[in-house]
Amino acid sequence: MKIITGGVTAAKGFEAAGAEAAIKYQNRKDMAMIYSSRPCVLAGTFTSNVVKAAPVLWDKKIVEESPFGQAVIVNAGIANACTGKEGMDYCSRTAKKAAQVLNVPEDAVLVASTGVIGMQLPIDRIEAGVEALAGIKADTEEAGTQAAEAIMTTDTRSKQAAAEIEIGGVKVRIGGMSKGSGMIHPNMCTMLAFVTTDAVISKELLTRAVKADVEDTFNMISVDGDTSTNDTLLVMANGAAENPEIKDGTPEYEAFCSALHYVNETLAKMMAGDGEGATALLETKVIGAATRQDAKLLAKSVISSSLVKAMVYGHDANSGRILCALGYSGVSFDPENIRVFLEGEQGRVPIYQDGKVITDSEEEASALIAKQEVHVLVDMKMGNETATAWGCDLTHEYVNINADYRS
Amino acid sequence: MKIITGGVTAAKGFEAAGAEAAIKYQNRKDMAMIYSSRPCVLAGTFTSNVVKAAPVLWDKKIVEESPFGQAVIVNAGIANACTGKEGMDYCSRTAKKAAQVLNVPEDAVLVASTGVIGMQLPIDRIEAGVEALAGIKADTEEAGTQAAEAIMTTDTRSKQAAAEIEIGGVKVRIGGMSKGSGMIHPNMCTMLAFVTTDAVISKELLTRAVKADVEDTFNMISVDGDTSTNDTLLVMANGAAENPEIKDGTPEYEAFCSALHYVNETLAKMMAGDGEGATALLETKVIGAATRQDAKLLAKSVISSSLVKAMVYGHDANSGRILCALGYSGVSFDPENIRVFLEGEQGRVPIYQDGKVITDSEEEASALIAKQEVHVLVDMKMGNETATAWGCDLTHEYVNINADYRS
Repeated sequence: MKIITGGVTAAKGFEAAGAEAAIKYQNRKDMAMIYSSRPCVLAGTFTSNVVKAAPVLWDKKIVEESPFGQAVIVNAGIANACTGKEGMDYCSRTAKKAAQVLNVPEDAVLVASTGVIGMQLPIDRIEAGVEALAGIKADTEEAGTQAAEAIMTTDTRSKQAAAEIEIGGVKVRIGGMSKGSGMIHPNMCTMLAFVTTDAVISKELLTRAVKADVEDTFNMISVDGDTSTNDTLLVMANGAAENPEIKDGTPEYEAFCSALHYVNETLAKMMAGDGEGATALLETKVIGAATRQDAKLLAKSVISSSLVKAMVYGHDANSGRILCALGYSGVSFDPENIRVFLEGEQGRVPIYQDGKVITDSEEEASALIAKQEVHVLVDMKMGNETATAWGCDLTHEYVNINADYRS
Repeated sequence: MKIITGGVTAAKGFEAAGAEAAIKYQNRKDMAMIYSSRPCVLAGTFTSNVVKAAPVLWDKKIVEESPFGQAVIVNAGIANACTGKEGMDYCSRTAKKAAQVLNVPEDAVLVASTGVIGMQLPIDRIEAGVEALAGIKADTEEAGTQAAEAIMTTDTRSKQAAAEIEIGGVKVRIGGMSKGSGMIHPNMCTMLAFVTTDAVISKELLTRAVKADVEDTFNMISVDGDTSTNDTLLVMANGAAENPEIKDGTPEYEAFCSALHYVNETLAKMMAGDGEGATALLETKVIGAATRQDAKLLAKSVISSSLVKAMVYGHDANSGRILCALGYSGVSFDPENIRVFLEGEQGRVPIYQDGKVITDSEEEASALIAKQEVHVLVDMKMGNETATAWGCDLTHEYVNINADYRS
């Protein structure tokens, strides 16, 4: 696998665009389009929140029932959630407009929204936006970047990743973009992420690959414990690479999965590190767990703890709070038997073992917890299973952003 | 039931004291004692965190195995958690000292600690503190208040409640004190709470009453989602009222339970409202749920949401965030069918119904969410079960406190 630059336009046959549509934000791009010149096999995972935004309901139906997909229309600023029948009508009108200007079937158009819950979309501006996007879409890296910028809300950086593999002597690419950055505690997948590939792969196999991979990537991040109403991951495969079809159980499928994993994990980590108000990425790796599920619960408990997050912000390597978070994760263990480290380029610094906080490595530990990426390593010494989760620190800026979002 | 003033010394035969012992804090009281002149029947609930502080392990054993209890020694500043064998030895030495100066059996002495995890107790100062406390203990309301003040950490107010009932023509009292105010997401019971009563009641019945009541009181509050290593509720009944023994299934038992409930709920609400950095108490009442468990999950999900908490701090009645939190609670429901209100002295203001956020009552809603007590009411329209949970807002001060706790 080769890591390459770019995002949703890295794979052959995909175009993208970003434009100013004044949906809620002023003087910035707030609508994006992804378009494939060929029909795409679709896979998607959506929020597990019982309260699902209208575009989530719309896309779920398309992914499950439509023969193929060809375009995605995204807006930032308004989530189109808790908007009743009117909200569903807006999805339909957006798709209709896109079908018209792109000359694709209406049921091949996916829609996605992110922003304030409970406000209705200004549909006239959405429709005008769709028309503008269709006029400027392109297959360039720059066009992909424009789209990635247009879907940001409180994100401070746009998020893209792409990789290339070879299948039967043919180059196959996977690229994606995503946005955070609050209400992030995905359960199925996260806020908005779009991944495109030119691979030839069946819908069934693509769906299986995606469902397995989100468990280790998007579902292992948290910014604030709030599972959004709009979480959406869409993966589109248009077959433009014209590789021999990827089959289950082959080295080619493995290669495809590892490239997909790279793109998903990179996007997920970017989301965690750019969580609302964050100054640091907090990674927690659990090794030596008895089961994979245990490893995941433990890792997620640490990165989700308000007190651990505030401690990272305060650059205080207070390992007692990490122990506390492990202890209420729901996993049973002997606190006397586990070990906790901070990891840096120079190796591991132990901060807890034999049932006690270690204080004589305080200076090294403090240096490691002040970095922009903080790596916690927990050795459960109960088995061989591992998992990694990603979060961010809890800062004054998080409170600023969320005490003053609508106004 | 009559609400009365006071705390742990409200019931007959109980003495208390608070003193400066310089455990970690300087120039403030940081050790407390509760003492009963008669042996007490004990009931207790403790943290469900796998990582249990040494005093939790000590007290669990006493509550389960000792014939009776007679004294509690509490310190603030250091939690005596993640302290290994040394930490257990300190519990034992504290109990030994108290047994000596109070002339009670060693296994009748309970201990409790709260504060920083991972530091060892300065046992000499603890022992000196025990001696000082024994010298000044008294059965006055003032002595109870001194004790309630001494157990505070980041609390801004001391927390006491007391009630009186009549049983067989005899006045019986229940009083208690507690402290918060971070790492509060009790699961069995919360940080430190001590309740005393002069009722004559068996250990079995007291235990049953306490276990049932914590489910609706201490287990229904959250400040930050972190279940502490030190959560402890101790209830001591010394029988000094000399009432006819309270028997199961009688109106007297009902009266006792309602007084216990008043004390527990009042202490729990005080903890929520005085959560670290809090400016407001956030109460969420769910009515019309299909099951009691559903009602609890829904109510706790709302008061635990970082985004709802930040919204209360920002005085923004953004009901979409409440819907989002209900939606990821784990309870299944039809979002089109439920209703959400803010409640005030003037009545209810609807903020969500028919699947949509209601915006035309925005002004009234904004006024209610700016109050010091914010009351959210959710009508699930699925049955007759109800539950109430209490939390607080998420503020800059919470981040201040927790990014700078150890230093």
